[in-house]
Amino acid sequence: MNYLEKRILEDGIVIDEKILKIDSFLNHQIDPKVIKEITSEFFDYFKYRVITKVLTIEASGIAPAIMMAAHLQVPMLFAKKSVPSTLSTDDKYSTLVHSFTKNKTSEVIISKEYLSPDDKVLIIDDFLANGEACLGLVDLVNQAGGEVAGIGICVEKSFQPGRKRLEEAGHDVFSISRIASLEGNKVTFVDE
Amino acid sequence: MNYLEKRILEDGIVIDEKILKIDSFLNHQIDPKVIKEITSEFFDYFKYRVITKVLTIEASGIAPAIMMAAHLQVPMLFAKKSVPSTLSTDDKYSTLVHSFTKNKTSEVIISKEYLSPDDKVLIIDDFLANGEACLGLVDLVNQAGGEVAGIGICVEKSFQPGRKRLEEAGHDVFSISRIASLEGNKVTFVDE
Repeated sequence: MNYLEKRILEDGIVIDEKILKIDSFLNHQIDPKVIKEITSEFFDYFKYRVITKVLTIEASGIAPAIMMAAHLQVPMLFAKKSVPSTLSTDDKYSTLVHSFTKNKTSEVIISKEYLSPDDKVLIIDDFLANGEACLGLVDLVNQAGGEVAGIGICVEKSFQPGRKRLEEAGHDVFSISRIASLEGNKVTFVDE
Repeated sequence: MNYLEKRILEDGIVIDEKILKIDSFLNHQIDPKVIKEITSEFFDYFKYRVITKVLTIEASGIAPAIMMAAHLQVPMLFAKKSVPSTLSTDDKYSTLVHSFTKNKTSEVIISKEYLSPDDKVLIIDDFLANGEACLGLVDLVNQAGGEVAGIGICVEKSFQPGRKRLEEAGHDVFSISRIASLEGNKVTFVDE
């Protein structure tokens, strides 16, 4: 059992069969020790890939993504949920991401300046559930003509279809913790 | 001239007399080298303060805040612009923040669980202009009964009233780069 899994068991709160609350250390309050351990696991897995950029989506993906980018010494780019005033319509790649939690579909954008056909992109996110956010990020990389070098996830809900959808699209998904079930008010990891 | 100021001169784009675009290295694409240099300056300035938590607001404050929190070995907390499904109304501190750029006032929240009267909070943000975001964060710390240990800013627009408003409220503001003017399509720093 790795450090993140231990923290999930110690400090995670199972809200219902689909929702795990880990905002005491990962996505509201963030323990830098957790992020360092996560980054170290990502690095071990992805260290032999050519990676020119780390891509995530605001807001909870930013902390692990910047720490990973610092480790790899490459730039980090985060997709935005609103269009900044300094960016004109023609200068952005745009995709739609559906949030099942919020039951809302939103535009997510990046500036065309910061992804090119030469980029080998490592996608990082905090959670993988239905895969909507990651598929949106993959779409942005594809629009730029770049290549997805891999997808690194902190917490995967393996009982939801995100991994399957990403793998079917040909991507290598590495998740640090894979949750098989939240049933019975209990976190069960894959392979336990 | 420090590293951030050099990068602003090299890669910043003056859009008009009020807007400086630095999204190639600070608030869309993020260069981890810039964040490391920023963190190192913050650390030099704040190292003798008692700090129990780093607080910022999503999204662009998260990268410098998590790197600073890692340096200080304390938790980082980011205020959210939307209320997560796992947080009930009674469990949050809430404040209003006006964005002059977007001409919109929005609710910003933190979970009550993660700020207490024992906390000595270092507030970190990417930009300081009118001070709205920082004053909102100060308000959240005050609601929790905690203490603001200091305010660290990456880029201050010194020709706007943010610093003055924060200092009048009794806070120590440390900004790594202080921009005196963007007039004539040129960045001029304070004390040049």
